[in-house]
Amino acid sequence: MKPWNKVAIVGVGLIGGSIGLALLRRNLAREVAGIGRDASKLESARQLGAISRGTTDLKAGVSDASLVIICTPVAQIAADVGRVAESCSSDCLITDAGSTKAQIVEQVAQLAKSPAWRGDIRFVGSHPLAGSEKRGAAHASPNLFVDRTVILTPAADTSAKDVESLRQFWSSVGARVVEMTPEEHDAILATTSHVPHVVASAMAAATPADVLQYTAGGWQDTTRIAGGDPELWQQILLSNRTNVLSALDGVGKRLEQLRQAIDADCPNELRDLLAEAQQVRNALGS
Amino acid sequence: MKPWNKVAIVGVGLIGGSIGLALLRRNLAREVAGIGRDASKLESARQLGAISRGTTDLKAGVSDASLVIICTPVAQIAADVGRVAESCSSDCLITDAGSTKAQIVEQVAQLAKSPAWRGDIRFVGSHPLAGSEKRGAAHASPNLFVDRTVILTPAADTSAKDVESLRQFWSSVGARVVEMTPEEHDAILATTSHVPHVVASAMAAATPADVLQYTAGGWQDTTRIAGGDPELWQQILLSNRTNVLSALDGVGKRLEQLRQAIDADCPNELRDLLAEAQQVRNALGS
Repeated sequence: MKPWNKVAIVGVGLIGGSIGLALLRRNLAREVAGIGRDASKLESARQLGAISRGTTDLKAGVSDASLVIICTPVAQIAADVGRVAESCSSDCLITDAGSTKAQIVEQVAQLAKSPAWRGDIRFVGSHPLAGSEKRGAAHASPNLFVDRTVILTPAADTSAKDVESLRQFWSSVGARVVEMTPEEHDAILATTSHVPHVVASAMAAATPADVLQYTAGGWQDTTRIAGGDPELWQQILLSNRTNVLSALDGVGKRLEQLRQAIDADCPNELRDLLAEAQQVRNALGS
Repeated sequence: MKPWNKVAIVGVGLIGGSIGLALLRRNLAREVAGIGRDASKLESARQLGAISRGTTDLKAGVSDASLVIICTPVAQIAADVGRVAESCSSDCLITDAGSTKAQIVEQVAQLAKSPAWRGDIRFVGSHPLAGSEKRGAAHASPNLFVDRTVILTPAADTSAKDVESLRQFWSSVGARVVEMTPEEHDAILATTSHVPHVVASAMAAATPADVLQYTAGGWQDTTRIAGGDPELWQQILLSNRTNVLSALDGVGKRLEQLRQAIDADCPNELRDLLAEAQQVRNALGS
């Protein structure tokens, strides 16, 4: 792939920093501009090699970039797309890395209807299924996306050329790329990512502080993601509210079946329920 | 510590095999006899260095052992203690590695009331908080217990000398040893281990097979223990039924609070609930 002349990353945290590191280490971009609110954090990211230069001035940062990736919290992404669209150069392609897609794609579609939106600016949603409960460019890795899935959520009016550009972009940092609608994305991610966060949180919060010393690998694995940032996660959960509620119901029903088998002291029924779960889990590998 | 002349392990799987490996590699026992039902598995364990010799004959295996460790499934432990008590040499100390304690300790106390029980045989319950969703001596490790907690659950008539022997035994394989009553143990472990298993199972089972390809680290961590053996886990859950149901209620209440905050679209309340969970989780480290 021909290297990008300039890529701009808005929000240089774990995801944004990892994209920058991957682009620069693999010589996929001549320049990576990092845009953020905190100059000292941008300077740290620059020293880590995650960006070529940092700026708190969005207009300066996105100037001349042919690709802009918005890596800010979910509730802020559409507004950031709007700000980028006002400032960026002609023929700019904008994507994001948000954990939900339908609301963002819809909000951007609304923005694009305004008379101020220039016809040469395009947005296509992306979601790299990679991350961690950790935050910040200090935890970034150039290999964060290697062998991970990135979901692209083109809209009805998205051009095949833009989808292909983003497919090449994410492939170039090591990811497998799939496409689906924003609605399909949100329904799936409610089950595979958002509800696990809710359940892990419930379990962590239900554990009294004085018994934490008696936890072992099981509790630790099961609750690990509850260490994630509460503000980021409330945004994700509320921007995918309906799907999350429905997926929570599914887990709740299963939990109730297990509870009933325990309450009724039924070894065979309980074993069968546990065996079904084991089969699903083992289909994936550790 | 003076090495044990002979230690017998009944049930040479992940836990029993790891005890044997630790004892032999650290020269803590001159001989480790492994007792099981499957001669070929015992031979494999011997080749791995987990036991000095294997036998399917319980009487021969425990003969001359001054310490016998029962590492069989929870529902079988008390009966195995009874069988060992009939066959072992004089002055034998018996312990186990079961994940629940109250039922086992009570069942053994009943056995010890029978006229056939010899007065020189003592049982003290142990539970090493170490393990894995994997099974079998092939996954055993001599370091499985290093820096892990082992809980001893002495009964009212347990001698201080026997507690001290077991404390030294588990310390010698690297563990931190604490003591509590069987009832305290079971109440705590319901929260820290048994309910996480139920919740992980519910989440795995509620995930349709066709979306497994879109899971990432979060789902994988949260459901890992659901890969555990269904038969072993139904025994654990049912032998700690009352505590498990009560701990499940605690998680259920918390889950309902989270669900309501999502349903009511309350960002502040949701963030606060997630933040409480984050605080508990972060108190432990990753």
